[in-house]
Amino acid sequence: MQKYGGSSVGSIELIRQVARRVIHTRAQGHEVIVVLSAMGDTTDRLLDVARSLSERPSGRELDVLLATGEQMSVALMCMALAQGGCRAKSFTGGQVRILTDGLFNNARIRHVDGGPIAGELGSGCVPVVAGFQGVDDAGNVTTIGRGGSDTTAVAIAAALHADECQILSDVDGVYTTDPRMVAEARRLDRITFEEMLELAGQGARVLQLRAVACAGRYNVPLRVLSSTADGPGTLISYEEPDMEAPVVSGIAFNRDEAEITVTQLPDKPGMAHRILAPVSNAQIEVDMIVLNAPRGGRVDFSFTVHRADYRRTMELVKREVAGLDIGEVLGNDRVAKLSVVGMGMRSHAGIATTLFDTLARNGMNVRMISTSEIKISVLLDEQHLERGVRSLHAAFGLDKDASPQAVRHA
Amino acid sequence: MQKYGGSSVGSIELIRQVARRVIHTRAQGHEVIVVLSAMGDTTDRLLDVARSLSERPSGRELDVLLATGEQMSVALMCMALAQGGCRAKSFTGGQVRILTDGLFNNARIRHVDGGPIAGELGSGCVPVVAGFQGVDDAGNVTTIGRGGSDTTAVAIAAALHADECQILSDVDGVYTTDPRMVAEARRLDRITFEEMLELAGQGARVLQLRAVACAGRYNVPLRVLSSTADGPGTLISYEEPDMEAPVVSGIAFNRDEAEITVTQLPDKPGMAHRILAPVSNAQIEVDMIVLNAPRGGRVDFSFTVHRADYRRTMELVKREVAGLDIGEVLGNDRVAKLSVVGMGMRSHAGIATTLFDTLARNGMNVRMISTSEIKISVLLDEQHLERGVRSLHAAFGLDKDASPQAVRHA
Repeated sequence: MQKYGGSSVGSIELIRQVARRVIHTRAQGHEVIVVLSAMGDTTDRLLDVARSLSERPSGRELDVLLATGEQMSVALMCMALAQGGCRAKSFTGGQVRILTDGLFNNARIRHVDGGPIAGELGSGCVPVVAGFQGVDDAGNVTTIGRGGSDTTAVAIAAALHADECQILSDVDGVYTTDPRMVAEARRLDRITFEEMLELAGQGARVLQLRAVACAGRYNVPLRVLSSTADGPGTLISYEEPDMEAPVVSGIAFNRDEAEITVTQLPDKPGMAHRILAPVSNAQIEVDMIVLNAPRGGRVDFSFTVHRADYRRTMELVKREVAGLDIGEVLGNDRVAKLSVVGMGMRSHAGIATTLFDTLARNGMNVRMISTSEIKISVLLDEQHLERGVRSLHAAFGLDKDASPQAVRHA
Repeated sequence: MQKYGGSSVGSIELIRQVARRVIHTRAQGHEVIVVLSAMGDTTDRLLDVARSLSERPSGRELDVLLATGEQMSVALMCMALAQGGCRAKSFTGGQVRILTDGLFNNARIRHVDGGPIAGELGSGCVPVVAGFQGVDDAGNVTTIGRGGSDTTAVAIAAALHADECQILSDVDGVYTTDPRMVAEARRLDRITFEEMLELAGQGARVLQLRAVACAGRYNVPLRVLSSTADGPGTLISYEEPDMEAPVVSGIAFNRDEAEITVTQLPDKPGMAHRILAPVSNAQIEVDMIVLNAPRGGRVDFSFTVHRADYRRTMELVKREVAGLDIGEVLGNDRVAKLSVVGMGMRSHAGIATTLFDTLARNGMNVRMISTSEIKISVLLDEQHLERGVRSLHAAFGLDKDASPQAVRHA
């Protein structure tokens, strides 16, 4: 199973290049199923056209329109494969058939009928499947949301029990942190689904969160690879018994955060819900949520939202707490989140200490902290982000030229 | 039933304009089904892309690619209609469902299930159907050949017993001849299917021949209309009892002809077939075929092909007759065909006389003649075509400012 992203099929020449790679993979004795995104920025261009007709285009018709992008890719890829002497057959989401619910623009895959694809594979043909799309029970065309082609690939790989689902794009693997920020960032040979979920969720946009979650659920090994260069990429799988996890695998960050704090809330049941309800009703996604232990019957309650939602959230919260017996509503939209992720953190106590120590020694104030089993996230002033990532990358030894397996538990 | 051609939906602004027209038609109390072609030159551009990948792209994949053009049109039209306050729902060929045979690029429609469309109509919604496409028994996407959207519209109109199938484009009706050649050419108020078949087949490219034949078979009245201007257009239907046909309805012509003659063939069975077989095996379409009465056991055999096929045809014929006891093979690719069409010709003897007399008086030599019940076609030197059309247009009174019904049988 190989999934190629939009930038890998952005031109006729790139399509030819991918066709050669598919033919090469088959020549090595592998059966290949190809899943494709739309060419380059096709989806964005189609969205622009739709928006020029209507501010709020019908969800159903938008999906009918967007689905044409991937349909073009698969038809052209089959022509390129045939030109290279390789039998190939395209499949739309409806032809596969990828059955989804009826939530247009953001449908969930319910079932994949691997039969038609398996039949083609068996006859020595390369099935080329349009990513991102499906059909609902009524036969309507649906799309499964941004980056959905990754999820299409994983769902088909799961249905057909593929050995591996390769995600090929202009990124050659998963790195310890963003190489554009830290020159010493290293490509990881392997990483677990859990770590990848935390890294992807924290802004390392290599893979769609949904695709990783789906791959984890069905235990489909994922491999992130460059579509143009050679190299093993990064394998994403479950932790294997003989695979000792590194303490810290990577550092993710996200600049577009905004922080809102309501001080001196009465320590009564339901207060947090009361403040967050209007926010989530307005379809605003809340990320970190922190509630301090109460002092004198009062608590400070903080949470973060995407920076674009900051003003709207402030208004909603202020309206909600008007008349309530609270301190004040504080906000800051110049903050950034930094997350340290690693399976080894489960059984390793010193990580938080190293983290806070490193930040403090570099004069950086931590505004919020939130932790999970394999992750510690901190909110910093935006201006400190870059220095924070660099100093922690060094402090956790991520810049050492060694496979992550070499960083053993203490 | 309204079908809009590619030039009528060639831009966002034109799509909005068509949406307004559809809404206007509904406001007048009509139920409307819309059938659309791809926007502007989309189909040609997609073909170019395919050809840049492969000289002979797979027919199946070409159809998957081309079908995206109409799919875009219908999605965008539904958005424009919704923006204008009109409920609308798009249908791909597969969703309608338009069942075809499996001949990719040039499939024939076998069956149209009007059910889904009728359901939407009944609920006050405008169904917007992608023309040109269907699905075969195995669920493969098919397209039904150039100009197939006209045929889609007629097939759906037939399945749903529509009152009228309107073909809207940049042409506002069927004319007595091409107005670009004869300024006096008049728009016909009505014309019969039979006449339209002869006119369309002879080069008056207003409507696809197949669509006219299909409309005739299922008795679906067709109306050719301008998509931008007002006006009644031309109604194409069966001759009605009270509708006395004009003697001559129109003059069609075709410049791109080439003539091939084999002289002094032995007058034996199978000679014509022997010469034409290699030509049709090479997928070359033969138009006029003329065989003179034999003189002294010998016949001259002539036929015409499209000018683009002239050289190839000459080679095939020369190869075929090599060694045969014949006169010679003559060719001329500077000829043009002119056809006079009219239902009234069935019962009116003087037409051929008027035709030959007019041409002779104007010094034009007739190279070939072929007749049907309602048509006389002559082959002329190309240089004489324009003068021929003009003089006949006047000779048959087509430039008189009167409805064709007024030109009674003599």
